[in-house]
Amino acid sequence: MTSESNFIQLMQAIATSPDARGLMDDAAVITIGHQSLVITHDMMAQGVHWSDDANPRDVAWKIVAVNLSDLAAKGARPIGVLLGFSLGDSQWDAAFAAGLSDALAHYNVALLGGDTVSITGSNRCIGITALGVATHTSVPARSGARDGDIVYVTGTLGDAKAGFDLSSAGKIAPIALLNAFNRPAALIAEGIALVPIVSAIMDVSDGLLLDVSRMAEASAIAIDIDLSAIPLSSEYAVIYGDTLDSRMAAATWGDDYQLLFCAPPGAVLPFAATAIGRCTIGFGLRVNLSGSPIELPAKLGFEH
Amino acid sequence: MTSESNFIQLMQAIATSPDARGLMDDAAVITIGHQSLVITHDMMAQGVHWSDDANPRDVAWKIVAVNLSDLAAKGARPIGVLLGFSLGDSQWDAAFAAGLSDALAHYNVALLGGDTVSITGSNRCIGITALGVATHTSVPARSGARDGDIVYVTGTLGDAKAGFDLSSAGKIAPIALLNAFNRPAALIAEGIALVPIVSAIMDVSDGLLLDVSRMAEASAIAIDIDLSAIPLSSEYAVIYGDTLDSRMAAATWGDDYQLLFCAPPGAVLPFAATAIGRCTIGFGLRVNLSGSPIELPAKLGFEH
Repeated sequence: MTSESNFIQLMQAIATSPDARGLMDDAAVITIGHQSLVITHDMMAQGVHWSDDANPRDVAWKIVAVNLSDLAAKGARPIGVLLGFSLGDSQWDAAFAAGLSDALAHYNVALLGGDTVSITGSNRCIGITALGVATHTSVPARSGARDGDIVYVTGTLGDAKAGFDLSSAGKIAPIALLNAFNRPAALIAEGIALVPIVSAIMDVSDGLLLDVSRMAEASAIAIDIDLSAIPLSSEYAVIYGDTLDSRMAAATWGDDYQLLFCAPPGAVLPFAATAIGRCTIGFGLRVNLSGSPIELPAKLGFEH
Repeated sequence: MTSESNFIQLMQAIATSPDARGLMDDAAVITIGHQSLVITHDMMAQGVHWSDDANPRDVAWKIVAVNLSDLAAKGARPIGVLLGFSLGDSQWDAAFAAGLSDALAHYNVALLGGDTVSITGSNRCIGITALGVATHTSVPARSGARDGDIVYVTGTLGDAKAGFDLSSAGKIAPIALLNAFNRPAALIAEGIALVPIVSAIMDVSDGLLLDVSRMAEASAIAIDIDLSAIPLSSEYAVIYGDTLDSRMAAATWGDDYQLLFCAPPGAVLPFAATAIGRCTIGFGLRVNLSGSPIELPAKLGFEH
């Protein structure tokens, strides 16, 4: 057992409030008056989530976007964020502030508060708490998938991997791929449109297969994913080809921030999304290629 | 200008929502439906806020208490917290989890969510976001002090300093002094009782004089503090004596988590607190000893 999963088990023993959703969901949901408040906290660390040569404006954008993506997965309208920031080089700090300003303006979200610390000689550690209000009476969880539901994903997968690989290798990369890694989009409008029709929803942050396995576990159901149906961008297919390996890489690398959701057959989607699998009675993730079963890879995604 | 104050200025330029209170208050106050939500985020870092030989159970208690203290200063009833935690030695992590459980149970507060990161070889950095609901219609700020108001503080000052000094020197210390440093109390009930009668309120976290100067600045008023009136515990006076120096130390060391507040003359306090000064037309902090002016010390408190 990793130290992370061990610690999360300790936290789950403490987090007995139903609002915490067993720490199994993208965000907590609290009823305040007649409103449902959705709240989440994600951290990023230097050397883990970004390299030393990363643009601090991008780091700021990304930490806002990944938090808002958790709100998107609950169909919440974001209200504001609080920032926990470890100070360092003042030029880096100023560029981070500029990126924070960009991202908050883009998503029309307020900076509400926060705190700073100075830790000499240590890697930086930055946390964002994001707060939103639910737009739909019943706020869906990961745990609602039912037998017969179709599994969908928005957009394309693997583009963040492609942007990361190309820029790490010092190659010129299409801006769309670079942005997929450095400046992911939080799919707020998509989440708001989806929540009335979904049975379960979450964002794809750690790799599609890992996140599907979490949804299957939370829903106590089996989910079959057809790798041949996974949506790849033409840019991704040009770089890696369209093979079992390239599809498996796109399905396990993570950092996609697309929305993964389940809906009953016949549900009318509010926009186009790709059907990639089906829920059946059983337990856990199963993968196939156009119907032929495939062994699960050793790593389903990014565990940190 | 320190890197901290520089960064906070950059953040204040972004935090234009009135809910953020110019980042000058203990917490943000957001209206959700007919309720006022109070939210704050405080961080603590290894080597800055706790030493390597600190008990992780105490570290967990303290980071919960200092966040709840910010809610207390708004008269908010706490609901829950989210935790940002950097993983490390698993025994330390488990002891921290036990302390977190203690503190949340003591204050009847839910763990709602959070995130973990692994930063190899770096000092730990832990953040808590605390969420509460206001108990009084108008949520007081630091900025409401008016000409003629009396300035009060709860409890005694300097006990955390005494606990820290004695234990750092390897001496046996009274448990009350050790607890003042290691396990401060968040004055939730006191805050709820005070908010209906105060014009301004905040908690004393960074040193009384520094926090009074912030209240004076936020309120655009002068505040005269009489050092001779500052409440010292008998334990503190036994150790340091009752001198100008010992009073100045108690007024500038910080980590007290008492409530500092202003109320009009004639206001009936809900419990005993010590009158330590008065607000007048003017600007900023002024210190006297039984009426004789005293020069301000170079350091008014702890800046981090």
